[in-house]
This record gives sequence, C-alpha cells and structure tokens, in this order.
Amino acid sequence: MVSIRARAASPAAERYQRPVLHQQQHNLVISLDGMGGDHAPAIVVEGAHLARRQFPSARFLIFGDEAQIAPLLSQYPGLADVMEIRHTPDRVTAEDKPAQVLRTGRNSSMRLAIDAVAKGEADCVVSAGNTGALMAMAKFSLKVMPGIDRPAIATYMPTRIEGRGTVLLDLGANAECDPNNLLEFAVLGAVFSREILGVAQPNIGILNIGSEAMKGSELVKESAELFAKAKLPGTYKGFAEGDDISTGAFDVVVTDGFTGNVTLKAIEGTAKLIKYMIKEALQSSWLVKVGLLLALPGLLLCYRPMKNVSKRIDPRYYNGASLLGLKGLCIKSHGGTDGVGFANAIGVAAGLAAKKFNQKVEAELQRLGAEALRPAAAPARLAGEEG
Amino acid sequence: MVSIRARAASPAAERYQRPVLHQQQHNLVISLDGMGGDHAPAIVVEGAHLARRQFPSARFLIFGDEAQIAPLLSQYPGLADVMEIRHTPDRVTAEDKPAQVLRTGRNSSMRLAIDAVAKGEADCVVSAGNTGALMAMAKFSLKVMPGIDRPAIATYMPTRIEGRGTVLLDLGANAECDPNNLLEFAVLGAVFSREILGVAQPNIGILNIGSEAMKGSELVKESAELFAKAKLPGTYKGFAEGDDISTGAFDVVVTDGFTGNVTLKAIEGTAKLIKYMIKEALQSSWLVKVGLLLALPGLLLCYRPMKNVSKRIDPRYYNGASLLGLKGLCIKSHGGTDGVGFANAIGVAAGLAAKKFNQKVEAELQRLGAEALRPAAAPARLAGEEG
Repeated sequence: MVSIRARAASPAAERYQRPVLHQQQHNLVISLDGMGGDHAPAIVVEGAHLARRQFPSARFLIFGDEAQIAPLLSQYPGLADVMEIRHTPDRVTAEDKPAQVLRTGRNSSMRLAIDAVAKGEADCVVSAGNTGALMAMAKFSLKVMPGIDRPAIATYMPTRIEGRGTVLLDLGANAECDPNNLLEFAVLGAVFSREILGVAQPNIGILNIGSEAMKGSELVKESAELFAKAKLPGTYKGFAEGDDISTGAFDVVVTDGFTGNVTLKAIEGTAKLIKYMIKEALQSSWLVKVGLLLALPGLLLCYRPMKNVSKRIDPRYYNGASLLGLKGLCIKSHGGTDGVGFANAIGVAAGLAAKKFNQKVEAELQRLGAEALRPAAAPARLAGEEG
Repeated sequence: MVSIRARAASPAAERYQRPVLHQQQHNLVISLDGMGGDHAPAIVVEGAHLARRQFPSARFLIFGDEAQIAPLLSQYPGLADVMEIRHTPDRVTAEDKPAQVLRTGRNSSMRLAIDAVAKGEADCVVSAGNTGALMAMAKFSLKVMPGIDRPAIATYMPTRIEGRGTVLLDLGANAECDPNNLLEFAVLGAVFSREILGVAQPNIGILNIGSEAMKGSELVKESAELFAKAKLPGTYKGFAEGDDISTGAFDVVVTDGFTGNVTLKAIEGTAKLIKYMIKEALQSSWLVKVGLLLALPGLLLCYRPMKNVSKRIDPRYYNGASLLGLKGLCIKSHGGTDGVGFANAIGVAAGLAAKKFNQKVEAELQRLGAEALRPAAAPARLAGEEG
C-alpha cells in the first residue's frame, strides 16, 4: 500500500506511463463524459478542477474531443497530471432517442465514459448529457443490480434544517411503478441518506395527497402495506405530502417517476420564480437602485447569512442526480449547470464510490430478503382478480 | 331593476323583513360555512368584511354558531346589514371522513351552506373546512354538471408575468383519471382562465415529465392524442413540465388529482422554505440586526416593489380553490388562512358567479360535443384488449 501511495505522489509520470488503472491504486478514479450538456467540455474540466479541493487524491478519465479538452486542461494548474484524455469524437445530443443511441452511440463520449466503469477502469461516471440516453446506456453497460427490478434517479433537496437534505426518488426513470418498485427505491434512498448525508436512521415516507391511510392512489395504498411489513434500513413514517419534502420531517421520500419528476421541476421552478421576482423588483426603478445604494453599508453586515440562504437554495449545490440500482455508479449532472454545479455532481459520485454505496445496498437487499421485494404471491393475486 | 337597486340601498330593513333571496335581487348572495377551518368563524366574518371592498353590493348568508358569530359582526360597521346568520350548531371537523359526513352531517354548517346554493338562495358557497367532506357534500347536494364525469379542484398559481396566473387542476379530487377526465378539466380550466383571469385564448398544457411526444405515462400520451383533436376553448400547446407552471407559458395546466395535489403542495412548501430561510438569516445574529437598522432608510425606498413581490407569492392572494364541474359554485378556502385569504376565496366565488361561469362551461361542453368527451369507442377498446 505504501508503494502505491508513493507512486500516486508523482501522477504526471504515471500518466504517461500507462492509463489510470483503478485496480492498481486506492485513489478514486472518476470517468467523465466530456461532451455532455450545454456547456461541455468547459464546465466538465472546470468541475473536475473544483472537485479536487474536496477530493485531492481523485483522478479523472475524460472522454471527448481532445482538441477542445487539452487547451482547457492547461488553464488549471496540476489538473493535466491527474486527468487522462481519451479522444472520442462522437457524442450523444440532447435530441437523441435512448433506443437509437443504444444502437448507434457505441463510440460516443457518454458510452465510453460509462464503459470505463463497467470495465473497472473507473469507480464512477458523471455526465451532463441526455438523461434518457444515459439511463439506457448505463442499464445496458453497467447492468441492473441483483435484487433490483428498476433503477431509479435520486437527488436530495434542501430543507429547513441546514445540512439535512431530503432524498427524493424516482425522478423520472420509471413513469409507472408498482409497490415493489417503491420498496426498492426506499432501500436505495435510505442507504443514500445514511451513507452520503450521514443520517443514521432515515425517516422514510411515501409521497401522497394526504397523510391518512385511506387517501391516495391504489399504488400508494398497496405500497404502504408493503412498507409497514418490510425491514427497511430506516424508519417508515407513513405518507409524506408535497410540502413535507422541504420541512426535513422525512429523510427519504419515494414516489413513481412521473410524480417525482413533476415535483422536482415544480420545486425548481418555484425557486427560480421567486429569484426572478426579487431580481425584477430590485431593478424596477431608479428609486429602488438609490435605496439599495443607501442601504449598502448596512446590507454588507447581512451579506454572509444572506449569501448562505442563496447557497442553500442554489440548485448547483444539489446538482448530481444518482442513477441508483445499477452495478456501477453513474451520476447525471444538470445539462445547463456550470463548473460549480458539475463539481458538486462529481462530489456525489466520489461520495458514493468512497462509501462503497453499492455494497451497502446489496447488504440491505440481502437483509430485507429478495422474497420481500418480489413476492411470488403477486402474479397469483392478479390471476385471482381475473376469475 | 331600478327598484331592486333602490331596495338594496337599505339592506338592513330588507334583512329583517325576510331572508336574503337571490331570486328577488340582482346582487350577489354568497353562502358561507361559518365554522370551517382552523380560525372560524373569526376569519370568515373578517373575510366577508374585506371582500365587500371589491364587491360592495354582495350579501352573505353565514351558517354557524350564532353566539360566536353575532359579536364578531358588530366589529365591522355595516356588515350586519348585509349578512344573515343562520344558526347551525353542528359542524364538520377536519378528521371527519367524507362518507360518514354524508350520512351524519346533514345539519352541519358546511352542508347547509352548500344547500343554500342548491336551493337557489345563494349564488355560491365558500368553506374553509375539510376538503374531502366539502367535495362529497357538494357533489351530493349540488350534483355534477351534465357532460362532466368528474368534478375537479382548480386554482391559479403566480407566474413570472405579473397579473397572469396559471390555472392548475385537478388538485386532488380524483387521484386516478382517464384521458376524458383530463379533457373535461381542460374545458373547466380554460373557461376559468378566460372568464376569471381575462385570458382571451388560453394556452393549455398537459403536465408531463418531458415535452417530447414519446415521454410520460400512458395517461398523458392518450390524453395528448385526444386533446389534439378536440375543439378546446383555447389553444392546446402540448406537454408542460413542472417548471412551466411558473413561467406563464401556459395559462391552463391539467393533470390527475394525485400529481396536481403533490405539485401544488410542493410549490407551496418551496415558497415557505425560502421565506423561512430568509427570516432565519435576518434573525441569525446581532450583526445582521444592526446591518438591517443601518440599511433601513435605503430599504424604505425599496419597500413598495419588495412588498409587491411578497404579495405576488403570498398564498393568501391565491386562496380559494374552485370545485369546478358542479351545478352550483363551491369554493374551498385553505383551512389555515386569515381574513385576507378568506376574502380572496370569496372574491373567486363572486367572480365565478358574476361571470356566470357554469353557463359558459355548459356552452363550451355543447360546442365540444358530448361525443368528444365520452366516445363510445372507449369500452370497445377495452373489450379488444381482453381478447
């Protein structure tokens, strides 16, 4: 182990000797889709640079157009020493359909970045590209984890309690779900909450339109029965309503991908609306501008806490949705984010890898029992309904 | 008509002569559940007082405990002259189940307030009580409008465009819906947008997890096909995503009651979260308080536009969810609102009544054709699936 660390101390030399190989060192290797998203590859490279502050020993494999990426690397001192460019001219666009990309995108930066995880060259992959394509390729290349029927997309949302985020999933991978899917999401979300957000015993809720047992769709009613009996890695607290996501009362909120996606975007839209209205008001007249100028010395004293609020609701600091339930770790960054946001997505990826997230999930699934997740009774019940 | 107006000028005299009778005057009569919600009857009476500024000729029937209501009336000059108390000791509580209330709540303030509309004594009813009970009783007493399969709950949300709200429905009356339900919601929402919000040709969207045709659940895909063919009272613009609700790009966004309820509460929760964080930050230290004091003269110049922002996202000014698709007009106020919020709910009720909302909806349904709403083909398709 000592010799490995010693070698890592001279990463530049290592880079030109051979590709970054995960197996030969204990440092994290992060695979990056260098061409995904609106502002790639610039934000990808900047994000890697920023992420190094938190993960100084991380190394990167970046897939994309070398002619674009190489000059960017030189802007950040030392980055070239820990980042290997794998020249990949092909890329997945925002318009590409998932099914088509599976056939034609085998040499795209997104696919090769995922494949690096599948081959064991990297611990995790981060892409700001097309979500549908990423999910399809990741499922194909990384494969679904045993015991999981449907992988889910998860993120954590700000709450009233500083430093305590609520994990919300699924955010759109599965528009239609069954109760067992939601149970699997609960396991994935609870392990995320515990390992990444540090909540020892996460409170788990099922998103619903009321807190009483009789409320809601058949899906949530049946799920509630299943959850009450299951040995979840956390505490099942019953139904959560839409406004419970932001109070901190629940650490994990599970829902189908349709509701989750709409909810996430509605929350983002509301935060943007308020920011827009405040900005508009502060630019509305000369009087206001003079007022702000007069208020400036006093406002400077309020700068830190107000900046903190702005940071707490800044989507960049929540960027990085995790595709959970796959055999490899894959993180989706928002397509329109900047370097700070992309660095946060890398942080999520590195956190999942460092905490051996998938091993923890597998242990929980085993504890819960595959039986509980996919009971053999389910088809029988359906047959009974027909008769 | 002149004589009616002359009589209305002396409402006190009229009140003691006979009950307020809608048929005998052109003034609006609003029926109020005096005992619904957390702060009834105080906010109900205050709300009526405040609503009179906008609707000076409105008259009120209030159902509830006379001993509690009468002393409140005397606090607002002139209110007793236009408000008749119908003593009703029974009330529906927040815990009451809809089915049970239908049997046992026949003499509750909520039920009798609704019945006043059914009997033609009032033009509309407003209650801050239990939503499920209100919907159940309103459906039972007022009956569903011909051509409507399922009534829906609708409200309008703030957008980036000042004065232009987006109508969102269903907000929870129907956890599970079919495409025809969504089409009916579109008619109800579009007439609301046109008549109440003044949008001549409303843009209509179906809430979905992406804007491409292939995205989403079976419900939204089938609905999209139906919408594209229907002669809606507005323009069908395709799929709306969660963050489109707040941009003003859509005037009407339709969805099932599960998604709508969760979305509405998530939006409310986000606005509350941001307000909470800002308040917390401004009280976080002495330094901040000193800063605010120093900034005060300058901030006073910014007061009006900032106050305006606060008002634009204040849920009280969006209070009053409409139960649409019933033969009578029924408005649900938020249970925890104050007098200002309740006044806004009365305003929505009065607006719908003044604009003859239900007549306009009936005309649109006729134009659209009952055929389009409930095609005879639907059962055939289901039968085909079995074979």
